[in-house]
Amino acid sequence: MKIKPEFDLIPEDGWRKKIYETVYLSHTKAGKIFDICLLVLILISTALLMVETIPIFRLEYYREFYYAEFFITLIFTIEYILRIICVKDREEYIFSPLGIIDFLSIVPFYISLFFPIWHFVAIIRMLRMLRIFRIFNLADYMHDGRFIVSALKHSSRKIYIFLLFMVIFIIMIGSLMYLIEDGKNGFSSIPQSVYWAVVTITTVGYGDISPATPLGKMLSIVVMLCGYSIIAVPTGIVTSEFRKQKKNNFQCDRCGNEDNDENARFCKICGEKII
Amino acid sequence: MKIKPEFDLIPEDGWRKKIYETVYLSHTKAGKIFDICLLVLILISTALLMVETIPIFRLEYYREFYYAEFFITLIFTIEYILRIICVKDREEYIFSPLGIIDFLSIVPFYISLFFPIWHFVAIIRMLRMLRIFRIFNLADYMHDGRFIVSALKHSSRKIYIFLLFMVIFIIMIGSLMYLIEDGKNGFSSIPQSVYWAVVTITTVGYGDISPATPLGKMLSIVVMLCGYSIIAVPTGIVTSEFRKQKKNNFQCDRCGNEDNDENARFCKICGEKII
Amino acid sequence: MKIKPEFDLIPEDGWRKKIYETVYLSHTKAGKIFDICLLVLILISTALLMVETIPIFRLEYYREFYYAEFFITLIFTIEYILRIICVKDREEYIFSPLGIIDFLSIVPFYISLFFPIWHFVAIIRMLRMLRIFRIFNLADYMHDGRFIVSALKHSSRKIYIFLLFMVIFIIMIGSLMYLIEDGKNGFSSIPQSVYWAVVTITTVGYGDISPATPLGKMLSIVVMLCGYSIIAVPTGIVTSEFRKQKKNNFQCDRCGNEDNDENARFCKICGEKII
Amino acid sequence: MKIKPEFDLIPEDGWRKKIYETVYLSHTKAGKIFDICLLVLILISTALLMVETIPIFRLEYYREFYYAEFFITLIFTIEYILRIICVKDREEYIFSPLGIIDFLSIVPFYISLFFPIWHFVAIIRMLRMLRIFRIFNLADYMHDGRFIVSALKHSSRKIYIFLLFMVIFIIMIGSLMYLIEDGKNGFSSIPQSVYWAVVTITTVGYGDISPATPLGKMLSIVVMLCGYSIIAVPTGIVTSEFRKQKKNNFQCDRCGNEDNDENARFCKICGEKII
Repeated sequence: MKIKPEFDLIPEDGWRKKIYETVYLSHTKAGKIFDICLLVLILISTALLMVETIPIFRLEYYREFYYAEFFITLIFTIEYILRIICVKDREEYIFSPLGIIDFLSIVPFYISLFFPIWHFVAIIRMLRMLRIFRIFNLADYMHDGRFIVSALKHSSRKIYIFLLFMVIFIIMIGSLMYLIEDGKNGFSSIPQSVYWAVVTITTVGYGDISPATPLGKMLSIVVMLCGYSIIAVPTGIVTSEFRKQKKNNFQCDRCGNEDNDENARFCKICGEKII
Repeated sequence: MKIKPEFDLIPEDGWRKKIYETVYLSHTKAGKIFDICLLVLILISTALLMVETIPIFRLEYYREFYYAEFFITLIFTIEYILRIICVKDREEYIFSPLGIIDFLSIVPFYISLFFPIWHFVAIIRMLRMLRIFRIFNLADYMHDGRFIVSALKHSSRKIYIFLLFMVIFIIMIGSLMYLIEDGKNGFSSIPQSVYWAVVTITTVGYGDISPATPLGKMLSIVVMLCGYSIIAVPTGIVTSEFRKQKKNNFQCDRCGNEDNDENARFCKICGEKII
Repeated sequence: MKIKPEFDLIPEDGWRKKIYETVYLSHTKAGKIFDICLLVLILISTALLMVETIPIFRLEYYREFYYAEFFITLIFTIEYILRIICVKDREEYIFSPLGIIDFLSIVPFYISLFFPIWHFVAIIRMLRMLRIFRIFNLADYMHDGRFIVSALKHSSRKIYIFLLFMVIFIIMIGSLMYLIEDGKNGFSSIPQSVYWAVVTITTVGYGDISPATPLGKMLSIVVMLCGYSIIAVPTGIVTSEFRKQKKNNFQCDRCGNEDNDENARFCKICGEKII
Repeated sequence: MKIKPEFDLIPEDGWRKKIYETVYLSHTKAGKIFDICLLVLILISTALLMVETIPIFRLEYYREFYYAEFFITLIFTIEYILRIICVKDREEYIFSPLGIIDFLSIVPFYISLFFPIWHFVAIIRMLRMLRIFRIFNLADYMHDGRFIVSALKHSSRKIYIFLLFMVIFIIMIGSLMYLIEDGKNGFSSIPQSVYWAVVTITTVGYGDISPATPLGKMLSIVVMLCGYSIIAVPTGIVTSEFRKQKKNNFQCDRCGNEDNDENARFCKICGEKII
């Protein structure tokens, strides 16, 4: 099933229509090739940005990285201009989330030509990775992605409350641990102890801070067993939400109720027989 | 749906009624503003208490922290007095859990004026964070919170038994490990080894104690694989409890079908109207 | 619901019957008091055995621990003799799992009087903790415990196969990692690397061995993401088993089929109407 | 239920038929004994390969390991030749996955006689562990294994999308952390920070890299709580897939009820006989 492109075409226009079909649509042959090229370019670009930060590579291949980035930014700039040219409502595109990401993918390079603020620029360019979603957005793959997002959205309220409980529990435990370990062994302040509590309850367990007093270890044991049991709660919430999402309910022809179960023979709202 | 306030008002009284509506109710305009102010104040207060324990801040801004705490405690004290004044059964409020928390939120400051026992006081003041529940208690948000608590309560018995099994298993493993590692490598006593066993089975894994002998590592491998499988048990318990909680089905009088949904108006099997 | 005691009484006999009712039964008043005393004694004894291994306590309170252990063993010995006296089939009791545990709870102390092999003795005495199950065995608490065990037993075959897959996967990853890290950074042999693989896949992550080469870190990333996803499998197995266990099925009066669903109106085997 | 052997026999031939029945079939008596011997040999061989890499053993028992490997390879070689002799389509067997694994299990030893490239050879020989699947492939045990694989396969698309989200999220977090920790404390490059992000989100938590700045710790807290919640997603996906796999319900021809169990002989709603 094709999802309609978010931005409309300028009414019938020879070369612009061709660009539009290539750049925005994904079911045409040209569009498919364009999407694949774009995907490859994004992946290469992201990989380069990551590798570039490794000290030994940055020193040795400084110029190569620069030229590669120059070339990639050039292509993205051309693509950005083409997108603006062939779209009907230009402002709508430019200020849409996708348009802003497209803009942020290219502008840091041009800024860095004049102001050598390396670090922040690199991170902003990382946003171009989000452009992958543009490509997948049009693919029918996205149905399953929506399914996950929808399940999470429906259970978000329960998860928020669960997180509220968690946060209060974590701060309490952190404060108590600060008191017990008496500011020593890494528990130098309540925020530090809260950091420890999160590391422990989520079962991450770096070990950069760990209790040293017997009482601290006893409290840790309780906290760990709690964390181990509590993890069942978000799992339970999401799993039961997934189950609800699964149902293939029938719509009643008479009253339009969409919530009839799979094995229903009569609409549960109006009593109409379902064939 | 409004949940009724826990404490009744003194029968019709001009200014007291106004205070009551502001302080205890949350659906009036004044009550809403009051609740939001209270929430903000609690959050600021908690944040200050946490930041205060960071050594560099405590030394530099000692006086600022003191004045901020003074100001916040003053407001909480006024609120506490107002709550006592306008409620009907004062003893009921004062000795209710919420009343005790309200009291414990302010009294440590006044004690600290005379007895400089810093640490314990800070922790007790942390209890004011629990006052957040007062605000959420009245909101309809709480339905989902109750849902989680109810599911945990219903499965608590299974979880208790599971924990009993766990505790015995953990002590056994800890004792065995103490024997294998022969009191070395951090396994200096059975309580220490039990601490290690909990750290391992809950998959926290600080690494402050880890086995060094080949036999100890082999036992660790078994323990870790067990811990990894056992985590499925509380998850399974809670998930299946969540599922049960979901159903509130009606039985059809004519055909006896018990599987009609909460919002059904007709039996989905025989089409009989459900009143 | 009372579960019948596993061992029968010697036919009607004045004082033996009284002992039997106290020692084996738990619904009589004397039996309840006896069970609670036994539970308390087991807990104290276990706690003492654990605390005894802490070096500073062992040195300071050596004699006190000895006398406490002497006293506790004496009581357990008397209990053991009483159990033998009043039971009908003595051999059945002595060689039953519970009888063996009862015996192992007392015999290490008497051995240690003559042969001072401290360590092993301590661990064997830990088995007396298993006697807790004797007390819970008779309580109706056990229904939920059986539920968990039954669910695990029914899903054991799937879990075995899952573990077989896991073990092969873990050894493969361990071998590969040994090759990549080239015997350095703690990956000194394949068994060591396998130990690392288990620590990683189960998300324990001690950090006593962690990859240092870029290639090793890349493989680690893959392994961690696998471990993170794979944990869903045992959870899924156990959860779906729990769901199956939950069903309260009706038995058909005519054909005796016990597997009719809750919402069935006709027996699915013989077609008999279920009221 | 017997699963048919993948490779056909050469049409009726005295001694070849006997070999075929022993080597390929598992329901004959000779076949069963052969399978068990093979399983034991594979397990011993794998154990030897692992132990061989432990430095102290390799130095001391170098010759013993060599002879054991020689002997095991000899038996596997004979088995390989027998398999080729008695099968109908030899090419089909040789180039099948099982045939290639059989070949790779023996050839490294012969290569190592001439070229002493120890390390790679050891790892390739590890592939003989996969031969365990040959034995289990024929056992009815495999039904449950297939069940797990099938459930994972059906949910693979959702898991892929989930992993795509995860990977993008992880790289983003890694880049941000690199910026925050400013290339220090082990966050020396984006790939290193991504490694940290994976270690954290999957709750492994080695602790070889952990945040040291307050801002870094705050981001870590958010990442850990996310990781803790996100783990519910693959669990939810797989669990709901397991549930779907369970049902193989029949539809009733008369009343259209689709919810009859696999073993039902009458429709549970209308009592109609199901053929």
